[in-house]
Amino acid sequence: MTIDYSLIIQELNPIKIIQETAQVKELSLDYYYFSPILEKKLQDKIADLIVIPTSEEEVLKVAQICVKYHIPLTVRGAGTGNYGQCIPLNGGIVLDMTEMKKIKWIKSGIACVEPGIKMSILEKETKKQGWELRMIPSTYKIATLGGFIGGGSGGIGSINYGQLRDRGNLNRVRVVTLEKEPRIIELQGDETQQINHAYGTNGIITELEIPLAPSYNWVEIIVIFKDFLSALKFGQTLADSDGIVKKLISIHANPIANYFNSLNSYILNGEDCALLSVDENSLFALQKLVKEFEGKITYQENLEKNKTFSLIEFTWNHTTFHARKIEPNITYLQTFFFSLEKVEEMYNYFGDEVMMHIEFLRVGGKAIPAGLQLVKYSTEARLNEIIKYHEDNGAFIANPHTYILEDGGRKHIEPEQLKFKKMVDPYGLMNQGKMRSWES
Amino acid sequence: MTIDYSLIIQELNPIKIIQETAQVKELSLDYYYFSPILEKKLQDKIADLIVIPTSEEEVLKVAQICVKYHIPLTVRGAGTGNYGQCIPLNGGIVLDMTEMKKIKWIKSGIACVEPGIKMSILEKETKKQGWELRMIPSTYKIATLGGFIGGGSGGIGSINYGQLRDRGNLNRVRVVTLEKEPRIIELQGDETQQINHAYGTNGIITELEIPLAPSYNWVEIIVIFKDFLSALKFGQTLADSDGIVKKLISIHANPIANYFNSLNSYILNGEDCALLSVDENSLFALQKLVKEFEGKITYQENLEKNKTFSLIEFTWNHTTFHARKIEPNITYLQTFFFSLEKVEEMYNYFGDEVMMHIEFLRVGGKAIPAGLQLVKYSTEARLNEIIKYHEDNGAFIANPHTYILEDGGRKHIEPEQLKFKKMVDPYGLMNQGKMRSWES
Repeated sequence: MTIDYSLIIQELNPIKIIQETAQVKELSLDYYYFSPILEKKLQDKIADLIVIPTSEEEVLKVAQICVKYHIPLTVRGAGTGNYGQCIPLNGGIVLDMTEMKKIKWIKSGIACVEPGIKMSILEKETKKQGWELRMIPSTYKIATLGGFIGGGSGGIGSINYGQLRDRGNLNRVRVVTLEKEPRIIELQGDETQQINHAYGTNGIITELEIPLAPSYNWVEIIVIFKDFLSALKFGQTLADSDGIVKKLISIHANPIANYFNSLNSYILNGEDCALLSVDENSLFALQKLVKEFEGKITYQENLEKNKTFSLIEFTWNHTTFHARKIEPNITYLQTFFFSLEKVEEMYNYFGDEVMMHIEFLRVGGKAIPAGLQLVKYSTEARLNEIIKYHEDNGAFIANPHTYILEDGGRKHIEPEQLKFKKMVDPYGLMNQGKMRSWES
Repeated sequence: MTIDYSLIIQELNPIKIIQETAQVKELSLDYYYFSPILEKKLQDKIADLIVIPTSEEEVLKVAQICVKYHIPLTVRGAGTGNYGQCIPLNGGIVLDMTEMKKIKWIKSGIACVEPGIKMSILEKETKKQGWELRMIPSTYKIATLGGFIGGGSGGIGSINYGQLRDRGNLNRVRVVTLEKEPRIIELQGDETQQINHAYGTNGIITELEIPLAPSYNWVEIIVIFKDFLSALKFGQTLADSDGIVKKLISIHANPIANYFNSLNSYILNGEDCALLSVDENSLFALQKLVKEFEGKITYQENLEKNKTFSLIEFTWNHTTFHARKIEPNITYLQTFFFSLEKVEEMYNYFGDEVMMHIEFLRVGGKAIPAGLQLVKYSTEARLNEIIKYHEDNGAFIANPHTYILEDGGRKHIEPEQLKFKKMVDPYGLMNQGKMRSWES
């Protein structure tokens, strides 16, 4: 059955749409090209139509039309994901949620918002009440909260609150289904797991309620070390220092910092370094810790005061972004190491082919080193060899070179999530081709 | 050289003193009688004179007089310690700091106070600015901050911030020395370790600067479980749930709760239970967790709303306090277990002779079960046997049945702390007999 989009466009009226090819192209893609594997597979994917709803009623109407004509539907935030999460494999409609950006309310440490709100804008408002977001991606300036929930997993702040999927980090969502008669359902607490990191395969989020974190006066700090292991051990010790309040512990092996042009005056020769965010009241304690590991603080500035740059935008996957600007053949891995010894082993084994970039985050109450290593890409075969070596030697890879949910970090889809999909998307219209257990 | 106290009293004038025997007796003791061993050793100890300074100048004057006449000096807060920390072994002056209770300032998450301030009163003030104390003992209503720093180690809140001695939990102290010419010195950051849990052997604290924690709307909760292991595992899982904000996880094996008269309507038959303090925004998540461990919530109340009691006063060493009110022969242990298996092993081995009471706290970034077990005391030999069995089987005992620093939780005194003592108390006047490495 071919879909007659001129008819669809009429039916969608007066909902805002985009048909102009260049724009449609742009709004069909994300940062998938960080992976040369995904680049080949996804570069030509394009939606037939971009639809930009401004209310839940309009979302419901789009859902009805998609069901009526069996149109593939792919939901999109700001498109800052890296795995093609929001790239439509089979054309159809891309639902751009960025105009659904209302803050409904913020009170007593909870925010209720529409999914298209930019995280930076939301945080500006929560800070007025003494709260901030529990965790943000390095793309928080433009990334939307709905996109982060649908396609992200953690970020700056995960050293305190773990990952998005951890119980307690998401209170409530409203979701529009793609059932025969689309409707709005509410999920609370653990039920929100159905849509958490599901790439928008399980309904269209129209409202989110998240618990916040108390706001601190964060100070951003760069520390350089005499070798990588000192930096790494410093990072773990800081992560485990219960009396020091921190939000970011990002460790970069030499020569990664050479890719950080704006930070050149603080890291002259790509030294092994740590990029940190620490509460101003913990500074004295931090300085002592730095001294113990023979580090040297080369930059220290209040986050609110520096208008030129934030260290946040050199960490997590922004590290990869900066490296690729200078060496476009660089790609990356995502790795859970669980111990410093394992990091050291891989650091020694691969040398400069796999440059060690570590972010510390909490997993099940314990701070662990997670790798976002920079890989000098040669061939797909070699990349797979590198991944296999990690897996064979006790490191867990959340493969960023796939758009399939099960081949990435999740490894498998819970039966409940599949059951939920059968209910809310019985025709399999949502983000087609991303969930293998559904396709098969 | 006998000391002529009539002369001393003249010289102290106009500083407030107490000579009346009953009062002197009362102000010479603490909760040492929780230990039958300490009870025998300490019950007859008494100061010659209680001195109650109201300013740093007065403290300095007392220090000068003590040095001049070589008078033993023992500093005291509210006397809520359990190891005779503030009991004078050789008479002399007990310096009661409770009138030095000024709050100097509170701003941006830091409080600067005199040491005699009651923690409950300080917290009332910090809460007006959205902050609270990082950790408090169960005696916080009357205990002083200076006493807590000098003689305590952790408490409610340690599940987040670790222990008092952890780097970053104490910013700065002012200390009056007992040198030939007593003077005031300031210690910052790590330097404060010299006075942290030193039982007042290393100078007289006259001012403290502590970092605070953001204030939450805490909800107190009682959960009963079908067996002890369910309660214990629930406790560890809650401790490790990074997305759930909590401040207290106190686990009590059946029949401990039978000693909690005021809680009888919520724990009818001394069931294995958890006493919790959780942020109101984490309640939904908590309820799911409770369900997973087949627990049942029997009490749930906002901390600020219940004026009758707080669960805090049934946890940490208040548990022992309540048990002793009903069975005066009960005493206790302090144990670091490091794993649930070790708790289970001891729970099974000792049965009701050592009733399992666990408080979860963070040590080096990891939440561990710490025991404050209730022991049905028979003889000193048997008590030592129980302690030895723990130590021989991989549990670390911080023995509460000794007033010697090195025999309790510390095990040894850092050379730096001893060096510091030589400097600030060259005549060994402060809290005589408590630091073995000094005496020898």
